[in-house]
Amino acid sequence: MKSEKDFSLDEKIEGDSIFIGDLPLCKFLLMNDSNYPWFLLVPRRAEIKEIFDLSEGDRKQLDFETVEVSKFIKSSFNPEKINIASLGNIVPQFHVHIIARYTDDISWPETVWGKYPYNEYKGTQSDDLLKISKSFINKLKN
Amino acid sequence: MKSEKDFSLDEKIEGDSIFIGDLPLCKFLLMNDSNYPWFLLVPRRAEIKEIFDLSEGDRKQLDFETVEVSKFIKSSFNPEKINIASLGNIVPQFHVHIIARYTDDISWPETVWGKYPYNEYKGTQSDDLLKISKSFINKLKN
Repeated sequence: MKSEKDFSLDEKIEGDSIFIGDLPLCKFLLMNDSNYPWFLLVPRRAEIKEIFDLSEGDRKQLDFETVEVSKFIKSSFNPEKINIASLGNIVPQFHVHIIARYTDDISWPETVWGKYPYNEYKGTQSDDLLKISKSFINKLKN
Repeated sequence: MKSEKDFSLDEKIEGDSIFIGDLPLCKFLLMNDSNYPWFLLVPRRAEIKEIFDLSEGDRKQLDFETVEVSKFIKSSFNPEKINIASLGNIVPQFHVHIIARYTDDISWPETVWGKYPYNEYKGTQSDDLLKISKSFINKLKN
């Protein structure tokens, strides 16, 4: 299993997102784009680029965390569809996008990537979102 | 567990792709777009829209099949990056895209969706690709 100690979050991901908290495997982040409730999971493992670089145990945990975040998104935001993707063409550090999509969001039914500039949260705009996201991970831990 | 007997492949997916074969859980398809080696996995389960609609056992198998297809793509096509995504904004039937991406492909580093019209395979163009893809699933079965 790849170790956690050599992991550090990619600088671009860090700059584009807001830290919510740590799940057992992944950093759980909110993309700083108020166009969509857009979350990221980043396994705290060094040198992971492709899905097969993760151990089977880590993949099982990633599946669990992906499903729990997806259920949280469904119950909290009731989107039309959840988009899940690991791309990495720009940032090769393995990360998973989990995004709530609505028929009236600005990119529907297209994908969110490269479509519009990030519409950053201002002032207290992200407070409620961060509060329920943190409440979700606290429940998951207990 | 959702049953297989009520499953039928979405008509749009069927029209946009070429059938390669059946893995234990998923239909394995080649997208009819020669711009990229672009594959699909579609679990043969009725009424699956989101990842959490699949049972835990099916998700474990989906993870296995996704990883095996990704390894096959890596070893056969040596891409710069593999893109994996379940979107479903246009076709809600749950399906996973697994795509070989290159720094000189026409959409790099952007995503492939909605970027260019499909560049359909003509005549025998897809023969080699289908041959190695079928050889891969035969090896996986044995």
